[in-house]
Amino acid sequence: MNNTFGTLFCITTFGESHGNALGVVIDGLPAGLEIDEAFIQSEMDRRRPGQSRVTTARKESDTIEILSGVFEGKSTGTPLAIMLRNTNQRSGDYNNLADVFRPGHADYTFQQKYGIRDYRGGGRSSGRETAARVAAGAVAKLLLKHFGISVRACTEQIGSIRAEKIDWSQIEQNPVRCGDPSAADAMACLIRTQAQKGDSIGGIIRGEILGVPPGLGEPVFDKFDALLAHAMLSIGGVKGFEIGSGFSAAESAGSQNNDPMTASGFLTNHAGGVLGGISSGNVVQFRIAVKPTSSISVLQRTLDRNGNEVEIRVGGRHDPCLVPRIVPVVEAMAALVTADLLLRARSSKL
Amino acid sequence: MNNTFGTLFCITTFGESHGNALGVVIDGLPAGLEIDEAFIQSEMDRRRPGQSRVTTARKESDTIEILSGVFEGKSTGTPLAIMLRNTNQRSGDYNNLADVFRPGHADYTFQQKYGIRDYRGGGRSSGRETAARVAAGAVAKLLLKHFGISVRACTEQIGSIRAEKIDWSQIEQNPVRCGDPSAADAMACLIRTQAQKGDSIGGIIRGEILGVPPGLGEPVFDKFDALLAHAMLSIGGVKGFEIGSGFSAAESAGSQNNDPMTASGFLTNHAGGVLGGISSGNVVQFRIAVKPTSSISVLQRTLDRNGNEVEIRVGGRHDPCLVPRIVPVVEAMAALVTADLLLRARSSKL
Amino acid sequence: MNNTFGTLFCITTFGESHGNALGVVIDGLPAGLEIDEAFIQSEMDRRRPGQSRVTTARKESDTIEILSGVFEGKSTGTPLAIMLRNTNQRSGDYNNLADVFRPGHADYTFQQKYGIRDYRGGGRSSGRETAARVAAGAVAKLLLKHFGISVRACTEQIGSIRAEKIDWSQIEQNPVRCGDPSAADAMACLIRTQAQKGDSIGGIIRGEILGVPPGLGEPVFDKFDALLAHAMLSIGGVKGFEIGSGFSAAESAGSQNNDPMTASGFLTNHAGGVLGGISSGNVVQFRIAVKPTSSISVLQRTLDRNGNEVEIRVGGRHDPCLVPRIVPVVEAMAALVTADLLLRARSSKL
Amino acid sequence: MNNTFGTLFCITTFGESHGNALGVVIDGLPAGLEIDEAFIQSEMDRRRPGQSRVTTARKESDTIEILSGVFEGKSTGTPLAIMLRNTNQRSGDYNNLADVFRPGHADYTFQQKYGIRDYRGGGRSSGRETAARVAAGAVAKLLLKHFGISVRACTEQIGSIRAEKIDWSQIEQNPVRCGDPSAADAMACLIRTQAQKGDSIGGIIRGEILGVPPGLGEPVFDKFDALLAHAMLSIGGVKGFEIGSGFSAAESAGSQNNDPMTASGFLTNHAGGVLGGISSGNVVQFRIAVKPTSSISVLQRTLDRNGNEVEIRVGGRHDPCLVPRIVPVVEAMAALVTADLLLRARSSKL
Repeated sequence: MNNTFGTLFCITTFGESHGNALGVVIDGLPAGLEIDEAFIQSEMDRRRPGQSRVTTARKESDTIEILSGVFEGKSTGTPLAIMLRNTNQRSGDYNNLADVFRPGHADYTFQQKYGIRDYRGGGRSSGRETAARVAAGAVAKLLLKHFGISVRACTEQIGSIRAEKIDWSQIEQNPVRCGDPSAADAMACLIRTQAQKGDSIGGIIRGEILGVPPGLGEPVFDKFDALLAHAMLSIGGVKGFEIGSGFSAAESAGSQNNDPMTASGFLTNHAGGVLGGISSGNVVQFRIAVKPTSSISVLQRTLDRNGNEVEIRVGGRHDPCLVPRIVPVVEAMAALVTADLLLRARSSKL
Repeated sequence: MNNTFGTLFCITTFGESHGNALGVVIDGLPAGLEIDEAFIQSEMDRRRPGQSRVTTARKESDTIEILSGVFEGKSTGTPLAIMLRNTNQRSGDYNNLADVFRPGHADYTFQQKYGIRDYRGGGRSSGRETAARVAAGAVAKLLLKHFGISVRACTEQIGSIRAEKIDWSQIEQNPVRCGDPSAADAMACLIRTQAQKGDSIGGIIRGEILGVPPGLGEPVFDKFDALLAHAMLSIGGVKGFEIGSGFSAAESAGSQNNDPMTASGFLTNHAGGVLGGISSGNVVQFRIAVKPTSSISVLQRTLDRNGNEVEIRVGGRHDPCLVPRIVPVVEAMAALVTADLLLRARSSKL
Repeated sequence: MNNTFGTLFCITTFGESHGNALGVVIDGLPAGLEIDEAFIQSEMDRRRPGQSRVTTARKESDTIEILSGVFEGKSTGTPLAIMLRNTNQRSGDYNNLADVFRPGHADYTFQQKYGIRDYRGGGRSSGRETAARVAAGAVAKLLLKHFGISVRACTEQIGSIRAEKIDWSQIEQNPVRCGDPSAADAMACLIRTQAQKGDSIGGIIRGEILGVPPGLGEPVFDKFDALLAHAMLSIGGVKGFEIGSGFSAAESAGSQNNDPMTASGFLTNHAGGVLGGISSGNVVQFRIAVKPTSSISVLQRTLDRNGNEVEIRVGGRHDPCLVPRIVPVVEAMAALVTADLLLRARSSKL
Repeated sequence: MNNTFGTLFCITTFGESHGNALGVVIDGLPAGLEIDEAFIQSEMDRRRPGQSRVTTARKESDTIEILSGVFEGKSTGTPLAIMLRNTNQRSGDYNNLADVFRPGHADYTFQQKYGIRDYRGGGRSSGRETAARVAAGAVAKLLLKHFGISVRACTEQIGSIRAEKIDWSQIEQNPVRCGDPSAADAMACLIRTQAQKGDSIGGIIRGEILGVPPGLGEPVFDKFDALLAHAMLSIGGVKGFEIGSGFSAAESAGSQNNDPMTASGFLTNHAGGVLGGISSGNVVQFRIAVKPTSSISVLQRTLDRNGNEVEIRVGGRHDPCLVPRIVPVVEAMAALVTADLLLRARSSKL
C-alpha cells in the first residue's frame, strides 16, 4: 500500500504532475460530518501555485470535484473521493529532461526503481502530488474541528533569517507565511535575491496541534510523534523533524527537560505534548527542516541516462523556496495523523 | 495493528518490563536464510542492562529462545518467534509509583488512554520493550548481510561534548559507544557526574546504512527517510531525526545542497543517500536526538492519581544517559526498515 | 481500510450508484506493463447494463478514463486511477424509497450503521459498485497474462436448470453466459418468465484460474482459497463458495478425495488446485452461489424508517437474475486475488 | 502480514507442529476486560487431541501461559501473548516423510513455495496450528460476552449422516459434537468404521453468532459474510462456506428468498443475518464443508522429492474425521471476525 497513509482515517492518493488528474480517496471518514466544500477549496487555494512573486509562475485553478461519499452535504461513511484536473501543463518545458537526471531530484532513483519514468514535471515525484494531501487534510480538519481540535503551521526561518516571534494572525498576511512581519519582509527579500541568481534557499516550519485530548497515539511503534515524523518526512524536500525540545534536548539535563505537572497543567512543554508516544493534553509542537529547491538554473554537474557526465541548468517554473507552500501541506499531514489517531483511540478501552 | 512494524518484513512485539516475558514474532522473513543464533544473542548482549557504570544496575541475561520458524538452522518462511524471559524484576521498587505520575514518563498518558496501567517498571512503556526490537533487528541484519547491506550507529554527542571524528572500530571499545576515544572519556565522565547529582543527560546518535542498492523506498508516503523517521521516533526518548544535511539544509542554497553526480558517483551526500524517498546508492546517513533520562532522583513536582500536587524523587535502577544503550536499538530499527523496503522493492518492476 | 482489497496488488474503490462518478485506484502494479486500454473497456462492456432482455434497462456507457499511472502506454509503478462517470441516473425512481427499507437490500443495515444513507439506487451498496472492480480486474488480467495466467467464469445453473457441459467458447455467445447452449436457452426463458411475474431467480457460477504456478497463497490465514472465498462473498448477492469438491467432500472418504500425484501431474482435482492454501499447479476451480435479485415488484412486507409496517413493490430498472452480469465480476475478483498472491510470492524465498 | 488476521482485533500466530512452542499475539484488545484464564484453558481443552476414540492418539496438555498484556486480572490494552509448548512430539514418526509428498497435504506446495520445509508432523501446515487460534478466539469470546454476543457451532453431517435436529445442550455430550444424539451415535460409528479401514470421512459444521447488533461489517470488501468466509476457508480442510440459504438460494425466487421485515423482526432468515455485508440484528448463520482427513493408511500414489512415482501409507497419529475437532476452531474464527468488526464499527459514525 505504497500510496496509502493512515490506518482508520485512511487516504490513498494518485496522480502525476502532467497527467490527466490528481486525486485522493478518503476511506474511514465517519458518517454524519458536514462537508464544507468551500473550506476544502480555500485550503487548496492556500497551496495553489501562482499566487505571488515568491512562488512558481505555473497557474492551476486546482478546482476540486467531489466524486463520491457525500449526500445532502454530509459524509455517508463511504469513500470520499476528490479529484482535481491538471490544466496548465507545459510538458514541452521538460522534454529536454527525458534523458538527464536533475541533481537533487528523484529522476535517477525513479529510473533505477521502475525502469521507466514519467519525466514531465517530475511525474509522481512532483510537489504537485501534495495537492491531493491538502484536499484530504482539509477534510481531516473538518473532522477535527468537530472535536475541538485545530492545526496550524508557519514559517519560522528562511536561510538564516529567523522569526523573533509568532503572531498567528499574520501568517496569511505575507507571502512567506511568517508570524513576524518584519522577518517576513527580510525573508521575501532573500527569496527574491536567490531567485534572481537562479538559486534557491531552505527554511524551517513550525507546526502546532491544539485541543488534542490526552490519550491519542499508540505506545510502541505508532507513537503520535513517530507518525508525525513519518508524515512530515514524507513531504518532498523535508530533511528533519523534531518534537518539543527536539535536538536541543541532547544538551539538556533531565531536571531541565522534564515538564513538571501541576494541578493547573504542565508548567513547560519540552515534551511537545507527547509522553511515551501518547498525547498528554498539552499543545503538540514540532518543527521541520526544508531543503532549498533542487531546481535551479545555476549550472550543475550530473549524468545522462547513458551514464555520460553532462552539465545542466534546470528550467521550468519553480518555487525558489519551498517553505511557504509547504506550510499548508504540513498542516494537512498533521491533521491526517491526528484524525487517524482520534479514531484509533476509540478502541483503546472497553 | 498498534504493535506491528513493517509491511513485508513485519514484526509484532509484546511484553512488559516486569511481566513473564518479552518477545517478537517476525513474519515475512524469506525462507532459506541461515539463522545464526549466536549473532542474535550477541546483539542482545549489546543492548543488555548491567554492563558498565554508565548503565542501569538491573541485570538481565536476556537469553533468547527461538520458538518457531527455524528448521535445521534455516528460516522456513513461517513466523520466527523469539522470546526472552524477565528474571531480575524488583517490582517492589515501583510500588510507590502506582499512584503517582512520574514527570517525563508515560504514566499519566497510559492512565488516560487505557484507564489501567501496569506501573511496575513502566510496563509496556519501559525501555525494556526495545529488547524485542533488537532481537528482530538482528534477524533483519542477517537478511541484509546476505544482500551485502550493513547498518551501524554510534554516539556523536553527549550533552555538549561532541565527537570530533568517527573511528568505527572504536565504537564497542568504550562504554558510551563513541567513535572518538578522547571524546568518549569526557562523555563517560559527564554521565557519571550527572548520575552523582541524581540527574541525567541527553545526546545525539549517528546512523548509517551501507551497501543499499538504488531503488529502495516508496515515492510518496513510505519514503525511505520517512520510514526511518517513523522508526527512530518510535524509540522512547528520541525527540528528533534528520537525514543528510538535515536542519542545516534550512540555511543552504540549492547550489550548495544539491549533490553533483559524476561517473564515479555522487560528489557529496547532503541528501543522506535518499532522493525523492528512494535510495540513490549513496550511504544512507541520519542523526537522532535523545532526551535526558526522565527518571531522576532530583526532587520534581507532579500529580498523583487523584490530581493532588506532590513532589517525588524517582528511585529504581536507571540509566543516567540513554544514548549508549539506544545505539543498538537504532541499528535494529534501521535494519528493520531496510529489510522491509528491500522486500517491497521486489514488486516494483515486472 | 474498508474499501481496499489486496496487500501488494491493492485496490481502493469509490463511488455510489447515483453520484458523480465511480472509480478505483490500483496501487502496487509493477512498472513496465503494457496497459491495453481497449481491453479494459471491453471488460467494462461485458459487465455493462442494458445489453439484453435478461438485464436491467438502465443504459450506461461505462466509458473509462485513466487518470494517472500510465506513461507512453506502460504502467509506471505509480497508482493507476480509473474513473467512470454516472450518466443515466434516474434518481427520481428512488425518491419513494427514501423512507422505506427494501427487503433483501442493505437499506436497513446502512441506516443502522451510518445513521444516514444515500438511498438513490442503493448508493454504495448498488451492484453498480462492481464496475470499479471490473476495471481493476481487467488490469490484473493484463498482469496475469504477462505471466501466462488466465481467469474465466461461466454460468453453471439458473434456478434448477443446470449446464450439462461447459464449452468455454460459447460463454459470450448467449445472454446468460452459459457454456451449454441448450441449457442457456432454457435459462434465458426461465429468467424472462420470472421477470414477467415481477419476480427473480438465483443461480450458480463456476470459476477457473489457469496457468497458476505452484507456490501462490499464504499457508495460514491468507490461503489462496480463503482469499478467493473472501473475494467472492464480497460481491453483493453471493451466498456461498466452494473450492474443488466443496460441499460434496463432506460425503467423501479420504481415499476418494485425495488427488493422486503422478509424474504427469495430479490424476484428479478434488482439491481445486490448492493444497494447504497454496497453489499446486493444478487448475484452480471454484463455484459460487448467487441469490435471486432482491428487487422484485411482487408485494412484500417491510418497515419504514419510523418502524411502521408497510407493503411495497420495488420499481426501478433491475436485473431479474444477477448471475450473467456477476460472471465478469467473479473473473475480476479472481484475477485480483491471483495478482496479489503472485506479487506476494516474490518474497517467499531469499 | 501472512500470519496476521484482523484489522483492529488483530492476531498474529506462530509455531509448528513439532517445534518448541506455538502461540499468538493479540493486538488491539481494549483495556479493562477481565481475562478469565480458566475459560481460555477450557477452550483449549475442547480442541485438544487425545480426548476420545474418534480423535488422534497424540496427547498434548495444551496448557497455556499468558506472557504479557494482563495486569491484576485485566487486559491493559497492550499485546496479550499466549504460548503453549509442544510436549508430545514423536517426530521420528515422520522421518520417512522427509522425502515424499503426502497426497492431500501441503508437503508438495510448501516445498515449491519455500524450497525448504519442516516435514515433522506437517510443520506449520499441521492442524496443530489452530491451537493458537482457539486461544485467541477464547479471548475474543470474552470480549464479545461483555457486549452480549455469543458464538456456537456443531456438527451437522458426517459422511451422509445428517442431524435431524439441533439441541445445543447436547453438543459437548457426544464425541462428534452433534446436536442430535441418535445421529451422533451413527456418526461416531461411521468414523470408527472408516478408521478401521485406514480411511477417513468428511462432514459439515453449522455455526451461529447470537446477539450481534445491527451495523457490523463493512459494505464493500470486508462484508461480515466475506470475512467469515475468509476465516472459515483459512482453516485447513475446509472446502466450502455458505451464509443463510447459501447454495440453495440458487434455486430460489426473490419472493421466497427475501426475508420480510415486521415490527417484531424478520420473519425468516435466508440472509443468514447479513444484508449487504452488514449485520441486520438477526442471528448470523453459516455452514462449512470439511474434507475427509488426508492422512490415511490406505495405499496411495504420489511422488518423492526427486519426482519419482512412489506408493505410500501415511502413518502417525491422525483424526479419522476432522469435523469434531474443527468445531471449536470454527467458533474461534467466528469470534475473531465478530470482535474485529465490533471494534471497527466504533468509527462508522461521528
